Amino acid sequence: MTRERLTLYDTTLRDGQQTQGVQFSTPEKHAIAAMLDSLGIDYIEGGWPGANPTDSEFFAAKPQTKAIFTAFGMTKRAGRSAENDDVLAAVLNAGTSAVCLVGKTHDFHVTTALGISLDENIDNIGASIKHCVAQGREAHFDAEHFFDGHKANPDYALQALHAAHDAGARWVVLCDTNGGTLPSEIRAITKAVIDSGIPGNRLGIHCHDDTGQAVACSLAAVEAGARHIQGTLNGLGERCGNASLTTLIPTLLLKPAYADRFETGVSHDALQGLLRISRKLDDILNRVPLRTLPYVGASAFAHKAGLHASAILKDPSTYEHIAPATVGNARVVPMSNQAGQSNLRMRLEDMGVAVAKGDPRLGVILDEIKTREDVGYAYDSAQASFELLARRALGQVPDFFEVKRYRVTVERRKNKYNQMVTLSEAVVVVKIGDEKKLSVSESMDSEGHDRGPVNALAKALAKDLGPYQAAIDDMKLVDFKVRITQGGTEAVTRVIIDSEDGQGRRWSTVGVSPNIVDASFEALLDAVVWKFLRDGVRSCPT
Amino acid sequence: MTRERLTLYDTTLRDGQQTQGVQFSTPEKHAIAAMLDSLGIDYIEGGWPGANPTDSEFFAAKPQTKAIFTAFGMTKRAGRSAENDDVLAAVLNAGTSAVCLVGKTHDFHVTTALGISLDENIDNIGASIKHCVAQGREAHFDAEHFFDGHKANPDYALQALHAAHDAGARWVVLCDTNGGTLPSEIRAITKAVIDSGIPGNRLGIHCHDDTGQAVACSLAAVEAGARHIQGTLNGLGERCGNASLTTLIPTLLLKPAYADRFETGVSHDALQGLLRISRKLDDILNRVPLRTLPYVGASAFAHKAGLHASAILKDPSTYEHIAPATVGNARVVPMSNQAGQSNLRMRLEDMGVAVAKGDPRLGVILDEIKTREDVGYAYDSAQASFELLARRALGQVPDFFEVKRYRVTVERRKNKYNQMVTLSEAVVVVKIGDEKKLSVSESMDSEGHDRGPVNALAKALAKDLGPYQAAIDDMKLVDFKVRITQGGTEAVTRVIIDSEDGQGRRWSTVGVSPNIVDASFEALLDAVVWKFLRDGVRSCPT
Repeated sequence: MTRERLTLYDTTLRDGQQTQGVQFSTPEKHAIAAMLDSLGIDYIEGGWPGANPTDSEFFAAKPQTKAIFTAFGMTKRAGRSAENDDVLAAVLNAGTSAVCLVGKTHDFHVTTALGISLDENIDNIGASIKHCVAQGREAHFDAEHFFDGHKANPDYALQALHAAHDAGARWVVLCDTNGGTLPSEIRAITKAVIDSGIPGNRLGIHCHDDTGQAVACSLAAVEAGARHIQGTLNGLGERCGNASLTTLIPTLLLKPAYADRFETGVSHDALQGLLRISRKLDDILNRVPLRTLPYVGASAFAHKAGLHASAILKDPSTYEHIAPATVGNARVVPMSNQAGQSNLRMRLEDMGVAVAKGDPRLGVILDEIKTREDVGYAYDSAQASFELLARRALGQVPDFFEVKRYRVTVERRKNKYNQMVTLSEAVVVVKIGDEKKLSVSESMDSEGHDRGPVNALAKALAKDLGPYQAAIDDMKLVDFKVRITQGGTEAVTRVIIDSEDGQGRRWSTVGVSPNIVDASFEALLDAVVWKFLRDGVRSCPT
Repeated sequence: MTRERLTLYDTTLRDGQQTQGVQFSTPEKHAIAAMLDSLGIDYIEGGWPGANPTDSEFFAAKPQTKAIFTAFGMTKRAGRSAENDDVLAAVLNAGTSAVCLVGKTHDFHVTTALGISLDENIDNIGASIKHCVAQGREAHFDAEHFFDGHKANPDYALQALHAAHDAGARWVVLCDTNGGTLPSEIRAITKAVIDSGIPGNRLGIHCHDDTGQAVACSLAAVEAGARHIQGTLNGLGERCGNASLTTLIPTLLLKPAYADRFETGVSHDALQGLLRISRKLDDILNRVPLRTLPYVGASAFAHKAGLHASAILKDPSTYEHIAPATVGNARVVPMSNQAGQSNLRMRLEDMGVAVAKGDPRLGVILDEIKTREDVGYAYDSAQASFELLARRALGQVPDFFEVKRYRVTVERRKNKYNQMVTLSEAVVVVKIGDEKKLSVSESMDSEGHDRGPVNALAKALAKDLGPYQAAIDDMKLVDFKVRITQGGTEAVTRVIIDSEDGQGRRWSTVGVSPNIVDASFEALLDAVVWKFLRDGVRSCPT
């Protein structure tokens, strides 16, 4: 079976940088380009040389990629030749083998935003593309507002495309710049373009997610004949974002409707690195990864409904549209008050705890979970506390130590320099075997900043646990989430703490109390005990 | 022009609750039902009565809605009559006028997940729907895995649908349970169902976002003839979520391709409340609203590209697919200080503060807001703190008192009955005029329960403010929200406090600090000072 080639074009470094709050540094651009290249993307658009200093710096030390590295710019302005347009010159001077120029195709924009005549604009498009081709570059034309333009004045919009096509543009890319076009419209208009004489293997699509349909719009264009898709990693981009390549790529490779007809530069091996690439980008942006992202989100294969979980046990395909591992993801069966016994057994098996079907302790554990979730605990986001709850019910958690008492003080007053400062101090008293241990810590970090009462408490708890100390020396608190689970006077605080150890293990624990310090302390205790269990620490006789 | 009626069915309270980490309390379910009703949704699915305690509690005190309030359940099990199925009985006992039952339509699931014969399953569907109709209920059938089922065995899948239809189901809802079906497949299969004899005005669609196309899939079904859409607010739901009504509703009302053909129960007036409803749901979930949500996201009309922003100034339709105000949203042009100043003036006017156009203090206030928002403050949800910031810059906030110091202690130890108890105590020292006042309070409520350190601190601060005391005697803390605004070591805590007074006024204040107690104290102070200003309290000479 011969399959047609689909070309993938990434604009994370240009349109993706239009995301509110996103500004890549040059080293970050290099890291992203390397990830895209490892994935097998055909074109990497690096930015707009000359438009801002970081873009210019990046092009001055271009990455070496298998992908065709591309510079973005715009068609020449009216009243000068392509050769004499300094903006276009800056783009060409970047020395990339491919160049993508944006130009107007919507008559309203030509007259309103540019304020030039319709003919001048057609001239600008043709002359600019011709100039790039004459310089030996592969030239692409980004047809801005093409779909809105085609709705308003189809003849003019097509005339603009043909000017680029006739001048030798390798790809003429239909852009839904404002993101409001519907998939059925994209399909019909793309077909009209092909009918006008521009073949599908010269046509690309560039969509935005303003109606939540960027992926569907891109696929509608492919179904209509376009053979080049522009998008970004994780759907970064102006306003609601661009079409997400992170979603499009697995759809193209794993759904028979596309996989049987098309091939791309992305291999199934590379596809298994997709989740890692998506998370790495969030790391670079210092963003919390969106759990609900298709394919690569942490919740994409999480089965919360009890009925679903029991069927998954029999056959994963009952509730999974693809195998999670194909994109580097994994199945999650979180605990919640919706969960049934089969859900619970599967979760326990994942933790290495075998419990026979019908074991009455399963019911005891489920009841305990329900009771606790009713007062505010959340076990689907605190897997380590869930494991402790289950193992305690199964008699598998020894009494490592007893907390006799603790005290935390937060004080705000003037320091010796007459500045208002806040300092927290914590005392924790534990009994290990027959020995009582008092530890005290304060909340100041190495730079002299107060990090708050929970920080002080965590440090005091972990300061001297005698014979167990070695097990927690490599442990640190990496995240701390607080939520009030009921409003008003009956407010209860739920604290979730993420911990990490020297082996890179990461685990989450939960505590609940009307008192935030107490809730935090409960989660801290669970974090420590879970670490003891994982490291096989033996308890001292009490 | 007569338009066809599209029916909207919300399952935020049932399928939306399948989102990882989401568990609504009964008051929260009431608040969400009221929001849905104000929007004009036709059906509100409340949950599965009998499946878990919160759902049962909610149905026991059902909200009064214009929308048809609906209970969810499943078709009867094999080997018993519908009358004798206790799970089905629990659903009917909830006493709702409509009932939605899920049942199998994919042969593989009948034999693998249920382990019953294909005929038994058909029988279960028909008998269950017939039983509900006989009880005078409007019955819907949720055809689970219908699209996968139709691909595998179209005859059986259709037989299952017709069993429900023939038994009197008002709506037969085609569910893409695993979320992997593509829009073109949804369109073709929905058409096949209509061709088989079930008319579109009896057909619904229920999609999930596993390929990022839940909205497109729902619209494809409508284009093929279905006239009922199931979805959730903000696209909550199992795995990657359900089709988002927050995206579908504006698309149906604002895009001519749908608006010209269809009408829904949502008015254009109600549509203007969409952003508020979306944010309120995030508030309830204590989630950071997703900036990139179509229509209602904070970035949905943010124009970062310089070229876009300058064209927007000439005509907003150049880069906006709809007018932001139609959904209650607003344009954001980060580059344009002009737009920022006129926005600010409008907000100040709303608070009764008139500032002349071009007053340089407007720029000072904007800079201060930006600086503070960069370190974690959030003035959208803390109007009272915003007002204080502005009034301080305008020299309109007197120094009522000075906080010299405070100290909060949290102690956990055994009480005289040998039980572990936690107690918090706070000391606050303020200077009013020349007088220094020390106040101490503890966190015990009237029932002897510890309410935590912030409670103790609030009581101590409000205990004796001398000449100002009368102004705060009727003030109480009604809600308290905590959010960690950056993960990991640089975590900063944002506290938002809602206060209320005897006249029913409610106001929100914000504090930010690495120390949660300090952040709370800052928000408490703002709450007190705002009340002084509102009551026209005169400051004592210092």
